[in-house]
Amino acid sequence: MFTIAIHGGAGAVSRQTIAESEDPIFREGLHAALNAGYAVLEKGATALDAVEAAVRSLEDNPLFNAGKGAVYTKKGIHEMDASIMDGSNLKAGAIAGIRNVKNPVSLARKVMEQSGHVLLSGKGAGEFALKVKEEMESDDYFYTRLRYDQWLKVRHTDFYHLDHIGDETPDRKFGTVGAVALDQHGHIAAATSTGGMINKQFGRIGDSPLIGCGTYANDETCAISCTGHGEYFIRAVVAYDVSCLMEYKGLSLKEATEKVMLDKLKKMQAEGGLIGADAKGNISLCFNAIGMHRGYRKSDGSSYVALYGDE
Amino acid sequence: MFTIAIHGGAGAVSRQTIAESEDPIFREGLHAALNAGYAVLEKGATALDAVEAAVRSLEDNPLFNAGKGAVYTKKGIHEMDASIMDGSNLKAGAIAGIRNVKNPVSLARKVMEQSGHVLLSGKGAGEFALKVKEEMESDDYFYTRLRYDQWLKVRHTDFYHLDHIGDETPDRKFGTVGAVALDQHGHIAAATSTGGMINKQFGRIGDSPLIGCGTYANDETCAISCTGHGEYFIRAVVAYDVSCLMEYKGLSLKEATEKVMLDKLKKMQAEGGLIGADAKGNISLCFNAIGMHRGYRKSDGSSYVALYGDE
Repeated sequence: MFTIAIHGGAGAVSRQTIAESEDPIFREGLHAALNAGYAVLEKGATALDAVEAAVRSLEDNPLFNAGKGAVYTKKGIHEMDASIMDGSNLKAGAIAGIRNVKNPVSLARKVMEQSGHVLLSGKGAGEFALKVKEEMESDDYFYTRLRYDQWLKVRHTDFYHLDHIGDETPDRKFGTVGAVALDQHGHIAAATSTGGMINKQFGRIGDSPLIGCGTYANDETCAISCTGHGEYFIRAVVAYDVSCLMEYKGLSLKEATEKVMLDKLKKMQAEGGLIGADAKGNISLCFNAIGMHRGYRKSDGSSYVALYGDE
Repeated sequence: MFTIAIHGGAGAVSRQTIAESEDPIFREGLHAALNAGYAVLEKGATALDAVEAAVRSLEDNPLFNAGKGAVYTKKGIHEMDASIMDGSNLKAGAIAGIRNVKNPVSLARKVMEQSGHVLLSGKGAGEFALKVKEEMESDDYFYTRLRYDQWLKVRHTDFYHLDHIGDETPDRKFGTVGAVALDQHGHIAAATSTGGMINKQFGRIGDSPLIGCGTYANDETCAISCTGHGEYFIRAVVAYDVSCLMEYKGLSLKEATEKVMLDKLKKMQAEGGLIGADAKGNISLCFNAIGMHRGYRKSDGSSYVALYGDE
């Protein structure tokens, strides 16, 4: 038994906000990422390899706010965050505010494996990227017309927001990406990657690169990747909360993810979603937003890709 | 009933590493910080005000690795981290890699109250500090002979470490500081502040500014501030783990802190300590290192200050 699940962000994802012509393009992107991760699992590689492969696929896709499709900060640059965690040994790596790195999730993995640290940030993280010869791209690579236009509209204001929440900008592309997986060896892993908030300033860091908040993995409980209004997800320590509800209260993956997303976060008026996997092969795709780009593929032949809340 | 507890770092704190003449100076510093926090509580102000006051006192004291006494990074500068959390509403603020701010804990509070975010980092956090007119100091202010000499010895190497772990440098000053408090209104709060690792590079962020890892507060469970090898404290999501053991397993503050510090972290070979308070007035000062600079003061007249493991 092996499984992979992914998300491409949660928020105002509906048939009103996504044009009919764009709908299949999003689904194709999700399928491609699932298949990238699944192929890794199928040949017997680790869950860690699989979540990295799936997230790289989403990072390379300009449809999603991570890697190539990252939003612009107030200064008109791209500052990206990513994290990865291995449920077999609780090792983790993350980067915050990185520039010009093609695949932030792969740099997060190198932080885990080569730095002796868990979280590197900013210019210093950029120096680490050069040291480990991480693949870099010029600012031009990260240019996308839609993201640039979004930024032009708000750059002279103090307005910032998640790229997928609110009606203030005509944004129909949706947030943070992530993956969770179970491999043939019974191990699980999680990874998350994001461009953060449009027009963000002051070196703001959300939940995506924070272990326990946006990402967590432990073979004994679950692998979790979150998306949503990061400040709330930090205060609620969301990913680790799901794990603790399973470990300390004996809840199932489904019960724990629903308790956190549909009860606790809803009471905080925190919008978003998460995906989870456990070592038994269960998957949870849970969100309290209108919709979430999501999907899974399992070795029993079942698979699923969806955008809206009603499918 | 009201209480305050503080720590000034854990590690190789013993009668062999602290000179007899220095022993009373450390105790004096801890007493001063306790009294600063206690005075705030006594006049009826909030636990949040109290932990900020106590941590400011420790930041202003060159004996401790936070604020004025912060260690040097590989580049010979000071990059400080701090966080604060209010148990009454789960609001939190934090900064990572901040330079030239006299009292990082006070900036973390402004992040919580004025930024709309939880965590700001690096140069951007410095811009926020200027915007909110946070008190700044020149690099000279942060110069201390001991810290500078420590750095000179290792600056040309890739060596980094906690200022209080290992025998590689003749360091007898000890780490990260923090405070937890219960106020007369029944609310609790926690705060942590640090200069991080000596000779750190690559924008490394430890557990101190990370909500759920180095700092957490929730009236329903506990207020926690940690000190120790940050990478392990992140992977173990230490502060929130204590809270979850209380909330989901019904453990007492004492049982939960001991489970995490003396069992789980010890198995990971993670050295450090933490302080905790709950809304009933209980205090826990728990560490698996040789010693920890620590103390508390309660409204019932009891108080305690200690450095070594056997007192």
